[in-house]
Amino acid sequence: MTDTQRPDTVSDTPIAATAAASAASTAFSLDAPAAQEVDALIIGAGPVGLFTAFQLGLQGVQAHICDTLPVMGGQCIELYADKPIYDIPGIPLCTGRELAAKLQQQIAPFAPIFHPRTQVAQVLAQGDGRWRVQLQGQEPGPDGGDGTTWLLARTIFVTAGVGAFVPKQLRLPGIEALVGRQVFYHPDPGDDWMAQQAAALAASRAPKIVVHGGDEAAVQAAVAAAQHPSLAKASVALLHRRDQFSAPQALLDALAALRASGRLEVVIGMPQSLEVAEDGAAARLQAMAYIDADGQDQRLPCDQLWVCQGISPKLGPLLEWGLAIEKKQLQVATDTFATSATGIYAAGDIVSYPGKRKLILSGFYEATMAAMAAIEYLRGEKLLLEYTTTSKRLHERLGVSHPD
Amino acid sequence: MTDTQRPDTVSDTPIAATAAASAASTAFSLDAPAAQEVDALIIGAGPVGLFTAFQLGLQGVQAHICDTLPVMGGQCIELYADKPIYDIPGIPLCTGRELAAKLQQQIAPFAPIFHPRTQVAQVLAQGDGRWRVQLQGQEPGPDGGDGTTWLLARTIFVTAGVGAFVPKQLRLPGIEALVGRQVFYHPDPGDDWMAQQAAALAASRAPKIVVHGGDEAAVQAAVAAAQHPSLAKASVALLHRRDQFSAPQALLDALAALRASGRLEVVIGMPQSLEVAEDGAAARLQAMAYIDADGQDQRLPCDQLWVCQGISPKLGPLLEWGLAIEKKQLQVATDTFATSATGIYAAGDIVSYPGKRKLILSGFYEATMAAMAAIEYLRGEKLLLEYTTTSKRLHERLGVSHPD
Repeated sequence: MTDTQRPDTVSDTPIAATAAASAASTAFSLDAPAAQEVDALIIGAGPVGLFTAFQLGLQGVQAHICDTLPVMGGQCIELYADKPIYDIPGIPLCTGRELAAKLQQQIAPFAPIFHPRTQVAQVLAQGDGRWRVQLQGQEPGPDGGDGTTWLLARTIFVTAGVGAFVPKQLRLPGIEALVGRQVFYHPDPGDDWMAQQAAALAASRAPKIVVHGGDEAAVQAAVAAAQHPSLAKASVALLHRRDQFSAPQALLDALAALRASGRLEVVIGMPQSLEVAEDGAAARLQAMAYIDADGQDQRLPCDQLWVCQGISPKLGPLLEWGLAIEKKQLQVATDTFATSATGIYAAGDIVSYPGKRKLILSGFYEATMAAMAAIEYLRGEKLLLEYTTTSKRLHERLGVSHPD
Repeated sequence: MTDTQRPDTVSDTPIAATAAASAASTAFSLDAPAAQEVDALIIGAGPVGLFTAFQLGLQGVQAHICDTLPVMGGQCIELYADKPIYDIPGIPLCTGRELAAKLQQQIAPFAPIFHPRTQVAQVLAQGDGRWRVQLQGQEPGPDGGDGTTWLLARTIFVTAGVGAFVPKQLRLPGIEALVGRQVFYHPDPGDDWMAQQAAALAASRAPKIVVHGGDEAAVQAAVAAAQHPSLAKASVALLHRRDQFSAPQALLDALAALRASGRLEVVIGMPQSLEVAEDGAAARLQAMAYIDADGQDQRLPCDQLWVCQGISPKLGPLLEWGLAIEKKQLQVATDTFATSATGIYAAGDIVSYPGKRKLILSGFYEATMAAMAAIEYLRGEKLLLEYTTTSKRLHERLGVSHPD
């Protein structure tokens, strides 16, 4: 992290600076945003993150887990939910979804606190060895705030796999300022969300919704918008580079019916730029310019733009934290799975060490090694290994009892 | 291994000598016992050994597995068959027996070859990098031989856990010469075995069987001997240091009934020595001298002595192979889980490396790392990781098919 990237707070020190000269960092100042103190924050709710929460829970530490996805499971849910997995020891066959479900069942006794649809925006070293972490929500928080949560974490576990699963961005000048107001990435078109958009569009007599994309999520969003009663007065256009969509047949049939009835228009074209008017202080999206199939410039009026170009993993801000990285992999010590920053551990596909094999099993092992090393770091003493077969203490934490 | 311990064969070189000067070793001579060539021998059929066979099988290598126990499962069967395990990833709860069963189901597609009730007696380096291994069976082989099998293994995996589970020995002068003829450790009192003993005792008019021990196996063996029709003319004594036995109630009831009827005698005492007569070339057991509860010398006539003093893990000959060992743990490299001898790998409770945690999960991971490193060693090229979720090649080996 370069100096120009450093935040303005005088008290916070980015990781890289800390690693270089930790004595220079001081405790965060009183006017910093209030932060919740936690023993452990796990970044990434894939199988490896979930098993980290299990091992921490067994040792009496309740973990916080954040993920960009709305549910736990990571790649198991996002990449191979219905695909078979044969190489988890003791499980001859399961799907990704089943494995994620079993792991959630396994960690349930420890009631980890899940922060869905959030991304880690900042990780700032405190003088006392803790880390101040900004979790940035994709939506406004329940209190009407901007969806930001601050945690003060004693340990952090980076189990981010191949990266955060984030929607692919539409790269058009000026689009960033509109995101969350008129531009939405990969919306989940449920009733609540539809009602929110209807309210936002209430002032407009004939609001225009443009959905951009060609996959299942795009078709589903366009069909949902065209069918939802609260958006009855809005026009709906589905913009895609060709008249071919990838979605289940039922959804394609619904799309065809809506097109036939004139309720929904399919527009073939490639976005070129956004037409924005100054509306008081804030910019206001009015239309999108695009090139049609014949190469002609066209204009599509637009009050809301829903972008569904797919979701792809992205390491994102992680790469800028200043941790030791090689070929986009975090370097870790194989006896503790600690990164180059004290109190920050890593496990799973995101780490690299001599001999590393990218298997879920490797991640489970690394998570266990990291959690146990972190427990020793938190307690300041060696961990005496106890076994779940016999330890009354572990049985208590698991909420079970066994006669002798 | 010291020089005096070295076998007489001129061609075989023990590991220690090889590690020191492998160039000096030569191929085994033609008059060495015939050996079966195998790619991989796994020593120890506990969970870690079984998962080694799985990973080797996925890579197309059929493994041989040997164990001193009659069944697969190791500690899972011997130490905590009915105890709960909570910390296998993706398995919220299972017993040791259930985990062993699942693992056997998981490796079934690869049909590993199991050598039960065998111990590795010798491991001898060949000049060509292979290892000549003597598997010593606890019973005569099906061909009437001494139960010895010779394998010529390209790789060996030591997954021996806390050691081989072997019966505790009764330390009395001269007893070794009688083992397998008149002295038997921890017999499995099934019909076949009973019939064998009946045949062996057929020449004697009033044969005397002494069972020594106080646990379930001892009571079961004594009750079985007293009840078995083929041993009707034999007298049965159960010798233990006190008149208290540890066994399920049904077995204790059977014992009480046999004592009441006079069919079985319980003798309280501590073995002191064996009374042996020269019978042609071989020594012949005639009686056992013991001290009774009052400290008096006594004599118990004895044609067969069945010793049931329990089973305990023992590293045994392994410690004398010349592998790098510290505190009775094999030293391994954490990128390959190779031992100090080329082609010999180790995983599970028997290994030690910086940070090692003795968990079943650690063993699963180490087994996987060892198997993959061994595959690279066998093939002489880097292993390109394939996934069981998508690889057609792995699906073929697993015997399954999935549409795209």
